[in-house]
Amino acid sequence: MSTIRISAFRWVPAFAQGLVRDLRVRWALEEAGLHYEENLIGPEDQNTGEYRRLQPFGQVPCYEEDGLKMFESGAIVLHIAGKTSTLSPQDSNQRARMMTWAFAALNSIEPVVENLAQIDLFYPGETWAQLRRPGAEAAVRLRLKELAEHMNGRKYLDAGFTAGDLLMTTVLRDLRQTDILGEFPLLDSYRERCELRPAFQKALAAQMSNFE
Amino acid sequence: MSTIRISAFRWVPAFAQGLVRDLRVRWALEEAGLHYEENLIGPEDQNTGEYRRLQPFGQVPCYEEDGLKMFESGAIVLHIAGKTSTLSPQDSNQRARMMTWAFAALNSIEPVVENLAQIDLFYPGETWAQLRRPGAEAAVRLRLKELAEHMNGRKYLDAGFTAGDLLMTTVLRDLRQTDILGEFPLLDSYRERCELRPAFQKALAAQMSNFE
Repeated sequence: MSTIRISAFRWVPAFAQGLVRDLRVRWALEEAGLHYEENLIGPEDQNTGEYRRLQPFGQVPCYEEDGLKMFESGAIVLHIAGKTSTLSPQDSNQRARMMTWAFAALNSIEPVVENLAQIDLFYPGETWAQLRRPGAEAAVRLRLKELAEHMNGRKYLDAGFTAGDLLMTTVLRDLRQTDILGEFPLLDSYRERCELRPAFQKALAAQMSNFE
Repeated sequence: MSTIRISAFRWVPAFAQGLVRDLRVRWALEEAGLHYEENLIGPEDQNTGEYRRLQPFGQVPCYEEDGLKMFESGAIVLHIAGKTSTLSPQDSNQRARMMTWAFAALNSIEPVVENLAQIDLFYPGETWAQLRRPGAEAAVRLRLKELAEHMNGRKYLDAGFTAGDLLMTTVLRDLRQTDILGEFPLLDSYRERCELRPAFQKALAAQMSNFE
């Protein structure tokens, strides 16, 4: 039995609680039924040589499993998916589609979502942010419109729930400071459907429990 | 023998030539020694229902291989990597590290690089872009500094050249409108080392040949 250990923040401000990237990894581990330990860190740990050897950018989460050390939540989630049919289809073509959607979530949707979230959460008072916000919002709406067209008639991104849906759900959650997702009922109900999974609820509770 | 077909643009403006995302897939296919066909498209094709069924966001590249249809260059490159030891290590822990670096390239480095590239290439005259540029440049420098610290004493991101290096190289290329990479000689020589691979040169020539 492997010992799995992930890093997470001891505390974050309210606007980030329930959104920190270790949520993705906790969720995947819960779907896989794998126990894990936490390595809770603070700002003072993010820049140590020891932590940077695990995570060159000083972020969370890191993932340690016996001899393996990984970072990047997307990579870790796909690694865990390889251990369980709850997150990864048996068919190799369907696995390739899962990977397609994992990258779509993190490389086609997340960048526009993050740009808007940064404007709203980190730079709301800055002139450039106020001037840029309509364009940043339009970029999000365009991608969501395209994603909603894909979701028409579908319950999940592809045949059944996979690691791709897990990652996409966490990206859509990053719009919670806005009402935009409500304009796309297909996406909002998709997000809700995925969030109702017991594994998500356990993962969210585990992240939040550290901030109480 | 599978038939592989990728989509690419018939033409793009000079600032995008040699950077379009199908370059990543061409490079991976050349490393794997796999023959491929091109499906050259123009703006008039990007919004057709037929193309959107292949690529919900209307972008390039798509990838078709017998019954499999994929999009997202990162996912396609990892899929191809699974076919060849030139791009993917045999050891499973090292494969997990390759995936770590693939996501680091596309989710930790590319977003800041793309923000700067968009300011420089698409919005240079806009007030918000001029006000934002120093911050966007600082965000790129921070990530490159962290990446350069990791690369100290290394030839590649991990043990040997993998799909992670392929993707990282294409991300670093997206800074070519600036002199920033020159401030990080370890990264610039790493990019050059990867670009000297014959497979990269063939892939670049293949993309460019369509624009002549």
